[in-house]
Amino acid sequence: MASASWLDIDEDSPFSIDNIPFGVISHNSRLADRQVAVAVGEYAILLQELVNGGALSQCPDIQPHLDCLRQPSLNDFASLGRPLHQTFRLYLRDLLRADTPYPGQLRDNRQLRNRAFFFRSDCANHVPMIIGDYTDFYAGVNHARNVGTLFRGAQNALQPNYMHLPVGYHGRASSIRPSGCPIRRPAGQILPAPEAAAPVHSASRKLDMELEMAAFLCKGNGPDGRPISIAEASSHIFGYVLMNDWSARDIQAWEYVPLGPFNSKNFATTISPWIVLADALEPHRCQSTTQRPVESALLPYLDEKSAPTFHDIPLSVRLEYPIHSEAGSNDKATTTITDTNASHLMYSFPQMLVHHTVGGCEMRVGDLLGSGTISGDTAGSLGSLLEMTDNGKTPLKLDDSVGSQRTFLEDGDEVVMTGKAGSKGAYIGFGDCRGIIVPAY
Amino acid sequence: MASASWLDIDEDSPFSIDNIPFGVISHNSRLADRQVAVAVGEYAILLQELVNGGALSQCPDIQPHLDCLRQPSLNDFASLGRPLHQTFRLYLRDLLRADTPYPGQLRDNRQLRNRAFFFRSDCANHVPMIIGDYTDFYAGVNHARNVGTLFRGAQNALQPNYMHLPVGYHGRASSIRPSGCPIRRPAGQILPAPEAAAPVHSASRKLDMELEMAAFLCKGNGPDGRPISIAEASSHIFGYVLMNDWSARDIQAWEYVPLGPFNSKNFATTISPWIVLADALEPHRCQSTTQRPVESALLPYLDEKSAPTFHDIPLSVRLEYPIHSEAGSNDKATTTITDTNASHLMYSFPQMLVHHTVGGCEMRVGDLLGSGTISGDTAGSLGSLLEMTDNGKTPLKLDDSVGSQRTFLEDGDEVVMTGKAGSKGAYIGFGDCRGIIVPAY
Repeated sequence: MASASWLDIDEDSPFSIDNIPFGVISHNSRLADRQVAVAVGEYAILLQELVNGGALSQCPDIQPHLDCLRQPSLNDFASLGRPLHQTFRLYLRDLLRADTPYPGQLRDNRQLRNRAFFFRSDCANHVPMIIGDYTDFYAGVNHARNVGTLFRGAQNALQPNYMHLPVGYHGRASSIRPSGCPIRRPAGQILPAPEAAAPVHSASRKLDMELEMAAFLCKGNGPDGRPISIAEASSHIFGYVLMNDWSARDIQAWEYVPLGPFNSKNFATTISPWIVLADALEPHRCQSTTQRPVESALLPYLDEKSAPTFHDIPLSVRLEYPIHSEAGSNDKATTTITDTNASHLMYSFPQMLVHHTVGGCEMRVGDLLGSGTISGDTAGSLGSLLEMTDNGKTPLKLDDSVGSQRTFLEDGDEVVMTGKAGSKGAYIGFGDCRGIIVPAY
Repeated sequence: MASASWLDIDEDSPFSIDNIPFGVISHNSRLADRQVAVAVGEYAILLQELVNGGALSQCPDIQPHLDCLRQPSLNDFASLGRPLHQTFRLYLRDLLRADTPYPGQLRDNRQLRNRAFFFRSDCANHVPMIIGDYTDFYAGVNHARNVGTLFRGAQNALQPNYMHLPVGYHGRASSIRPSGCPIRRPAGQILPAPEAAAPVHSASRKLDMELEMAAFLCKGNGPDGRPISIAEASSHIFGYVLMNDWSARDIQAWEYVPLGPFNSKNFATTISPWIVLADALEPHRCQSTTQRPVESALLPYLDEKSAPTFHDIPLSVRLEYPIHSEAGSNDKATTTITDTNASHLMYSFPQMLVHHTVGGCEMRVGDLLGSGTISGDTAGSLGSLLEMTDNGKTPLKLDDSVGSQRTFLEDGDEVVMTGKAGSKGAYIGFGDCRGIIVPAY
């Protein structure tokens, strides 16, 4: 199954040559302008250099589209469509295989390798697409049930619509941040106590994370906004990233009735740096872990007839945080706070997209759809601190020598989300989706 | 007060030379590409032709920025900032005055006038800015109270947060349509009856309009998303349009708890074609018609200290609809269904913008903020059919010979919103915000 490469790639790397995700990078000294690249092992490979160096000459299908590989975003490349993404990705894999059929194009062209290869750790990653609109769904049924139970009790945890449609809301495209961008704690209106008569203006005291997957689109339905059918929905999905939908729970609780979350979400949303193409995840398709109750059969326009359109991707969240020893030194500790799986969703991305467009909503290349928080059904598999701590009532104990615990995030805390499908030597992964909390203005 | 022009301008025109709103047009035979223009009387004046013909030579401030006037959108021009917008608008007014100080630049240059002037009725208008994100507020307090009363009773009409912050939600930038674009009736999930056990997939049976004002931004706060203070908020507002926030009430009722409106709104939102610059409306600033209760004083970050930041703009909605006579002929009838005023808001646009950014949300040039539905407090001044018909229970009688009535919009109905401030010969108006309903797919 795993493909061996002439490159030295750690067998635990999320970026095996079976993956080859796409992103946009810059580099302090070698690359001032943003450019599209792919990630392999510890490298980012600049596609414009492969074009310039002739390494793509044996891939006839990409020849008419080389300009798409010299852009500061992936929108033009995405627009080429999934069959071409797959052809090109497999060609790049062939270039990198130990038994490459095209040794002269890259493996044996040291000058080109020197120009095209960057250490990922030396590069800055940028939001890889121009995002027209960003939508966040609520398809993580365990999360929805846990949150509903917290606020309305177990009997009324899920709203009546939940089993019939993927609930979603429009997010803020300007809020999307690349991994590594510091996250400033938001301020806003919060109720100082549940029974308070009036709100105060304060930095959020309940800053939370939300573990999500998100999909970028490679095909629109405009300008007339034709509904997308369930049969064609997959062809609109370019690829996937991990997403941290930072949420200020106290701002949210005060503002969200009746029109939904607003300032509690729009300050920042972090995505992992590399878009894993939909085709790379095809071998890891699976069923949802959630059984749909017989009495809530889906309407035909949403019915996938048990097609395996979910993904078996183990996901983790770790907290990297400062600890203050008695000697006064500042160290960092790390605790893994979540181990879960991308398959814990009630609705697949094709279903989300179909429902999004059932009324004629126009979608564009580069649009981003978030899954909603992904939680498993056990204590260690929850995707938000809200759930882990029972809305701050039960602190989470962290793994360190000084007895640290958390209800919500503190300044200096860094949340790192990771995920990779597959097995050693052939991982299809995302790289870190990372953000550190800095104090409010 | 009114400025006379050498152009023949109807004294009822919304586009007096005291207005000079900005838009983007194309023309079947004379102008294939979209270009920025201004509206005066029955004309659209193409700015690139004024540049090419030397008509702007006496306006030194615009000289370094002439490229901004040769664009398919107004984003670059907007970015120049309000002082320059004002200088340039007043220069254009001077060019058009009967006693113009620059007669040779335009008035006496017939060749240039022939190239630069188009009849507005021959032109297509386009969405005039590239909209990064679109937000819709709920600042029309009469509307919020009416809708709250319908669904929760008079005692609980307004949520506890309403008097403390401008409630808003993220809309869909891709849904914004220019006036005149047909509006396809959306389909989606609706409950066939209030007590139904499951939804059906159906064309909306409760398609409604919402009368709103909306503001385009000319200044961002990014990329770090600094909160915008109430003192500086006005400098971020480029200008205003009318907006029809089409709403499918049956889809909305089923979907909107807990995360807000989604498919009930994202199929289409129509805006009037010309952006009336903020400075053109300065003479028509006023106080809100709504008294804030003493017990709900605003937090300091929102407090405008009674500055008159609302606008005294009479607004109307008329319905143009087919009537079927006994002889079988199809005629159209017209009924004015709303007369109200833009001052019926609880929060001003500067307050909306300040609240939007209090948590660090990034705003960009071209972002669009809607006010929420504007209703007066009398029967003939309501901004939605939901309110006029008590959610469809009491049909609205229309003014025609065949006794037509409406609960919600029917296919073939055309909604036309208009608004103009000022008085005869000096109106500052918007032109029609128009959309006709076409059948669902």
